[in-house]
Amino acid sequence: MEMLDKINSPEDVKKLSLDEMKLLAQDIRKGIIKRVNDIGGHLGPDLGIVEATIALHYVFNSPKDKFIFDVSHQCYPHKMITGRKDGFINKNYEINGYFNPIESEHDNFVIGHTSTSISLACGLAKARDLLKQNHNVIALIGDGSLSGGEAYEGLNNAAELKSNFIVIVNDNEMSIAENHGGLYRNLEELRKTKGNTKNNFFKTLGFDYIYLEEGNDIEALIETFKKIKDIQKPIVVHIHTIKGKGYQPAEENKELYHWSLAGFLDKKEQTNEKNETYLSITTDFLLDKKSKNEPVVVITAGTPGALGFYPEFREKMGENYTDVGICEEHAVAYASALAKGGAKPVLALSSSFIQRTYDQLSQDLALNKSPATILVYWGAISSMDSTHLGIFDIPLISNIPNIVYLAPTNKEEYLAMLNWSYNQNEHPVVIRVPFLPLKSYDIEDKTDYSKLNKYKMINQGEKVAILGLGNFIELGRNVQNKLKEQLNINATLIKPYYITGIDEDMLNGLKQNHSLIITLEDGVLDGGFGEKISRFYSASNMKVKNYGAKKEFTDRVPLDKLYEMFNLTENQILQDTKEILELELV
Amino acid sequence: MEMLDKINSPEDVKKLSLDEMKLLAQDIRKGIIKRVNDIGGHLGPDLGIVEATIALHYVFNSPKDKFIFDVSHQCYPHKMITGRKDGFINKNYEINGYFNPIESEHDNFVIGHTSTSISLACGLAKARDLLKQNHNVIALIGDGSLSGGEAYEGLNNAAELKSNFIVIVNDNEMSIAENHGGLYRNLEELRKTKGNTKNNFFKTLGFDYIYLEEGNDIEALIETFKKIKDIQKPIVVHIHTIKGKGYQPAEENKELYHWSLAGFLDKKEQTNEKNETYLSITTDFLLDKKSKNEPVVVITAGTPGALGFYPEFREKMGENYTDVGICEEHAVAYASALAKGGAKPVLALSSSFIQRTYDQLSQDLALNKSPATILVYWGAISSMDSTHLGIFDIPLISNIPNIVYLAPTNKEEYLAMLNWSYNQNEHPVVIRVPFLPLKSYDIEDKTDYSKLNKYKMINQGEKVAILGLGNFIELGRNVQNKLKEQLNINATLIKPYYITGIDEDMLNGLKQNHSLIITLEDGVLDGGFGEKISRFYSASNMKVKNYGAKKEFTDRVPLDKLYEMFNLTENQILQDTKEILELELV
Repeated sequence: MEMLDKINSPEDVKKLSLDEMKLLAQDIRKGIIKRVNDIGGHLGPDLGIVEATIALHYVFNSPKDKFIFDVSHQCYPHKMITGRKDGFINKNYEINGYFNPIESEHDNFVIGHTSTSISLACGLAKARDLLKQNHNVIALIGDGSLSGGEAYEGLNNAAELKSNFIVIVNDNEMSIAENHGGLYRNLEELRKTKGNTKNNFFKTLGFDYIYLEEGNDIEALIETFKKIKDIQKPIVVHIHTIKGKGYQPAEENKELYHWSLAGFLDKKEQTNEKNETYLSITTDFLLDKKSKNEPVVVITAGTPGALGFYPEFREKMGENYTDVGICEEHAVAYASALAKGGAKPVLALSSSFIQRTYDQLSQDLALNKSPATILVYWGAISSMDSTHLGIFDIPLISNIPNIVYLAPTNKEEYLAMLNWSYNQNEHPVVIRVPFLPLKSYDIEDKTDYSKLNKYKMINQGEKVAILGLGNFIELGRNVQNKLKEQLNINATLIKPYYITGIDEDMLNGLKQNHSLIITLEDGVLDGGFGEKISRFYSASNMKVKNYGAKKEFTDRVPLDKLYEMFNLTENQILQDTKEILELELV
Repeated sequence: MEMLDKINSPEDVKKLSLDEMKLLAQDIRKGIIKRVNDIGGHLGPDLGIVEATIALHYVFNSPKDKFIFDVSHQCYPHKMITGRKDGFINKNYEINGYFNPIESEHDNFVIGHTSTSISLACGLAKARDLLKQNHNVIALIGDGSLSGGEAYEGLNNAAELKSNFIVIVNDNEMSIAENHGGLYRNLEELRKTKGNTKNNFFKTLGFDYIYLEEGNDIEALIETFKKIKDIQKPIVVHIHTIKGKGYQPAEENKELYHWSLAGFLDKKEQTNEKNETYLSITTDFLLDKKSKNEPVVVITAGTPGALGFYPEFREKMGENYTDVGICEEHAVAYASALAKGGAKPVLALSSSFIQRTYDQLSQDLALNKSPATILVYWGAISSMDSTHLGIFDIPLISNIPNIVYLAPTNKEEYLAMLNWSYNQNEHPVVIRVPFLPLKSYDIEDKTDYSKLNKYKMINQGEKVAILGLGNFIELGRNVQNKLKEQLNINATLIKPYYITGIDEDMLNGLKQNHSLIITLEDGVLDGGFGEKISRFYSASNMKVKNYGAKKEFTDRVPLDKLYEMFNLTENQILQDTKEILELELV
């Protein structure tokens, strides 16, 4: 790391010779590989952007010139150059994997969702012009992120600027998985013609355009960036890079190494999970439908790997599989229309990314009562980055009319719900895929889910009733046991299968011999499930205590710490219960 | 209406000669003008699409062939042809102004938000292919709607279809107001070259393309549509039409007559509102900032007129005014970045359309703590169409961390909040612009809004406390008076200025001499403000009763009926209060 050792800020890069920059590129690659091997992270996109990042910092003057890296999937080299190499070579993993202004003035925004960079750059450029400043504004966006509508909206607007605006399109011929959509044929045509075809997407929107084939050649990059530095109009610089560059397995299997778990160096090859998981039972379910020639359509918005849609699965599904690319809005409208057209769509999204679809869920899906099935993965309180929390999907989805949002707690319930949703034609159904073992205590499931808003009574007790939503049924069961052990209370335990509805009969019935309801949900309290229960009982004598996450963007806080912060421990709940019940007795 | 009288279904159009179709066009125009003059509605876009609609129904076979009209701003001729002329010539105004499958099998979706048609068509086409059907799928989209990212996402995906897919771009050179963005220079180039320029946005995305200059010539339209009927690949048919065609004032002032109030025929000219309104005091505020050379940026997403940003205002604001076009996502990210860049953005959106920006509010704005100001207009329970309800903004916005969502109740409070928001640099602030008279009972406002989450005590009473949020402070005051008159209770009245936060001190203080809290909010209950109050008190002895809208897509239900449905009448609240208090006494 001889060369990287010398680099503490972009100023140090400007002092290097070309040969020294090449050595620096090698060191940076080692840093990327070390970090990802230690703690996991984005491998392929970072390896591909090393030279371009060095060249950017050599030519431009950050932080005066403003960089915005789309989705931050390629910010490791930038971080190493801007004073944060400890996060890569010295195991300082406090330094996170995304753009983060708290860490450095060289990061202009917290960024972790896709396709926002051009819009953000557009705002910075307009502010600059109004304030009569004169720096460069540079958005760096991968080809994969260009499928998101917000990127297009940004391009359309930025094209009207009469001042400096630089979009670097980092074209590594890949999204997270392979690219999909007409735009990608145009990018291919541009690459094949070295940017010379008349048929140019960016030019039709009003951008100037230049192409650089050698996107991993520092010298060529520097020359190109020098040419367009301080340009007084909007320009797209289309650079062709190699995803995974410099690490052969990543160059050869670009999708598998887009993001990697820790320890990849020690494994012969990255292998797909073979154990049974909620992902695998889902793909089995879908393959079964396909094998029966049903009009099933499984849909992902650019993240097939994270959803267990491995290459073999995609191949088997054939025309019954659609990757729309990173464009969740379209994905929801598309699924809604498929259902209206008589097909059987099953759209899978992560909790964090379904946030991009509120209006489509409301207008295209719910208002139209389209019987599509949507699976929400990774909905849970977690130690994730602030950009990828899975705690907001319940308020987002459950307050929209017409949607049935379901919370299964084990394999049998999940499959039964999925099967019901798939076969029915009345409701838009969303299922929050559990973060629980596949097997659970209560495995038989004969529930008729078409009778909406009927909760499942697990234990009929007295005094205290626990509503353990989805993932938190286990916490509910533990609290139930503690109440028995320590307070000799035989508490009622209930699975509220329907996040979107109240089982009024059951809840009214509880009034007879209960004085406290405990709600447990694996998500933010505000706007969530527990508040609905509080509202239901609020004018009665029933006490209610809601447990869930506080309304807060937490950032990589360990799960046990989060549970403590949110009072989500058995002991705290027991303590609260005692206090409330004593209050009740007085 | 001789010709329209004969038309009861598309079959009848197919029997007409060209001359008869021309007469039909005249009749349809009369119907459009009559309806809009009677009850208000979309005038310009409907007048412009008359000939194209006749030609579409002449050439294609609806409902076997599927039409999807983007945003439904141009569906009146279609409705007249498909059995619903009574909604235009016979005062049957049960028939609504948007696509609506409940009314007719010729409408494939409920549609009222922009830029969704291509995605929806894409789903219908895929379902058709899987089910081995062979009809045409035709999306009709205006040039103005093409700025929305979802339209681009749809185009990008549809381009990959290997089967019939027809997008008709209805280019009338206008959005609701003038168009903005690089795309519109390309459309202009396409028009000027009669579609012959090599620089073609649609072709870069992989579509076949044809251009028709005479978009109001039935014969030319029929010929064009016949050519592409049953085509087995994705094609864009770009037709040039005249917005407002056939009604001279609408042709001359395309923006003013895009949508018109009833009675426009009797007025000499459509005039802008001159009375003082929340819109006008906002524009005055912004003009004042402009006059002081402050870096204010007022932003609209394509709906300047509805927000009081009249042409004279725009002109005066100059470079401090940005219409980004219909692309709310970009608008929020852009505003966020403007604030980060040191400018003073004020973005105005309607409640219904801010739904399109959840992820941008969360990621680009709130997570980044950007001190932008967002004004939410038309947030209220209303007799609007199901597509344009203003009741969901509170759950949408108020459950996102870091955002301060404010509910002023009169001019002074509104201006004080706007001023505070504009000048501070700590928080993303959203203000729910009131639906109330500018003057109110409590006009002095010396509140320091930087002390977050402090509610305003209007009357310190006992037993019952009323939290009248925003618009519903007047209802709160009326309930307060009734409680005095009829139950001799001196109820406490509070303005909870902060939708996003709880004034714990004040609410805890109420426990001393109150036994019931009434919350009133002009929006949906689920996920809203009242539920947070219920949660706050849920483990205490305080009773809470939440009032607001039920989670339901209501459709043009009169306001008084809605208030009754939702128990939002003084008498009902009084009745409930009596019951709860008696229960309390027992």
